[in-house]
Amino acid sequence: MTDSLWREGISFPEALAHAAEMTDAVLGRLLAVPPDLEARVHQAMRYAVLAPGKRLRPFLVLAGARLFGVARHCALRAAAAVEMVHAYSLVHDDLPAMDDSDLRRGRPTCHRMFDEATAILAGDGLLTAAFGVLAHPDTHADPAVRCDLVAALATAAGAAGMVGGQMIDLIAEKQVLDIGAITRLQRMKTGALIAFSCEAGALLAKAPNGPRLALRGYAHDLGLAFQIADDLLDAEGSAVETGKPVGADAAAGKATYVSILGAERARAQAALLVRQAVAHLDLFEGRAELLREAARFVITRRT
Amino acid sequence: MTDSLWREGISFPEALAHAAEMTDAVLGRLLAVPPDLEARVHQAMRYAVLAPGKRLRPFLVLAGARLFGVARHCALRAAAAVEMVHAYSLVHDDLPAMDDSDLRRGRPTCHRMFDEATAILAGDGLLTAAFGVLAHPDTHADPAVRCDLVAALATAAGAAGMVGGQMIDLIAEKQVLDIGAITRLQRMKTGALIAFSCEAGALLAKAPNGPRLALRGYAHDLGLAFQIADDLLDAEGSAVETGKPVGADAAAGKATYVSILGAERARAQAALLVRQAVAHLDLFEGRAELLREAARFVITRRT
Repeated sequence: MTDSLWREGISFPEALAHAAEMTDAVLGRLLAVPPDLEARVHQAMRYAVLAPGKRLRPFLVLAGARLFGVARHCALRAAAAVEMVHAYSLVHDDLPAMDDSDLRRGRPTCHRMFDEATAILAGDGLLTAAFGVLAHPDTHADPAVRCDLVAALATAAGAAGMVGGQMIDLIAEKQVLDIGAITRLQRMKTGALIAFSCEAGALLAKAPNGPRLALRGYAHDLGLAFQIADDLLDAEGSAVETGKPVGADAAAGKATYVSILGAERARAQAALLVRQAVAHLDLFEGRAELLREAARFVITRRT
Repeated sequence: MTDSLWREGISFPEALAHAAEMTDAVLGRLLAVPPDLEARVHQAMRYAVLAPGKRLRPFLVLAGARLFGVARHCALRAAAAVEMVHAYSLVHDDLPAMDDSDLRRGRPTCHRMFDEATAILAGDGLLTAAFGVLAHPDTHADPAVRCDLVAALATAAGAAGMVGGQMIDLIAEKQVLDIGAITRLQRMKTGALIAFSCEAGALLAKAPNGPRLALRGYAHDLGLAFQIADDLLDAEGSAVETGKPVGADAAAGKATYVSILGAERARAQAALLVRQAVAHLDLFEGRAELLREAARFVITRRT
């Protein structure tokens, strides 16, 4: 059980680091490189998904699962699946036809390290593997739970979620969006997968609607706060700190929270969202302290 | 029940056309275009998956499902999921970084009709949607069956299957493969999804291993025969007939069954594979006539 996952009172930075370590270990086992000609695509998949990173989404899966006492190995497989989908989206978003980024997480992007074709395939392979992991009996004894996870991830990652959000983001390079459209874009592009991460534990535990919806509410506010913080980092951070090029949004003439609201109001808005996010957790009383700290972290992080 | 799907004694061309019509109707319903900014990616998904085509894989799903009396609407959802994965693979394979094709199924490829970024996203969206369709309760009442379908599709489509096969295919442009490596490539690149198509009905029916493995054997031989026929069409067909550029393999200096064996021996090998494929169906006695005809069709088709 995940009661043994983190000791009572573990600090957020410790829990986050531990989540990353455990998730990477599972990812490493799930994504072995075969001694065959196609090894190259497996190497690219590992390069992308095991790149240095905070593993915030796996942390959210584990912290959510912990609220319901979900078995540790089940939660870790869901966490690994979410990170695969996140990594795939970064690999495809970085492609020359999309954001054309050379740098990601402080290293060459996947298509710069390998080549464009391999990067496309590595993304495809990661996305596919995520669904295979969730559907496998090791993820949960009850196949109805596994189907719920697959269906929820497909909704979060697909054209009604992440893929649709990225489509709008591309359109935003040619068309000025208002704040409502940008909020919808971000809810789809980053919010949907963050929401799935927060809800996965509730799905694994077959939790009732109440706590599940509370986690979704938390995730929605957290996702937007996260995005505003990202926009602020892009506008004000340095490439050394963030590990990726900065100023890309302004250079692309893209409307962001920061360009519309200005840095100060954007920062206030993010702080408000974090307070809202945390309020959703009242239901869990003292047991959700790590999620509360995570919400505060997303707007204070420098990378 | 699919007993009412096709009347006793329906001819293969009629059944194939009917499978295409029914699958397209289901695809059309599953892939509605929302009245929102992201509509473009939905349009590209429909453009790719509803392009004119034989719909051989959906036919295989339906013909396989019919052997076990699987409910028609279940089989059709599995057929639609398979066609989504097939269409996604074509969209990504056609990209400039991959095969750089301008023509597919007689029309501009997805990235030529839309743009490269939209095509990448449309492929991602189709792949994701396929898993969502399979995991949905409408596909089968038993979630264990749905998980089996998701897991089997993930294996067939992922880095151990289709994605890995495409990786080897890219390597084959720079490295001469022998006939063993080419056979493995083709088993992964096209064979795995054809095998899934043939087995889906057995999974939906919770059929015992015997018939399931017979269908897999059939599919493996069929898949290779299909590929050899494809190579022959690429070497000898015309763009008008095939709806895509021909001579691409030779131009890329790629080893194929035809370049290694010569056209005549390749043709003989395909015919042998078809006889082998059909022999696997003896188990089903007179009930598998449509699958027998399908095997003969793949080596006589001109498109």
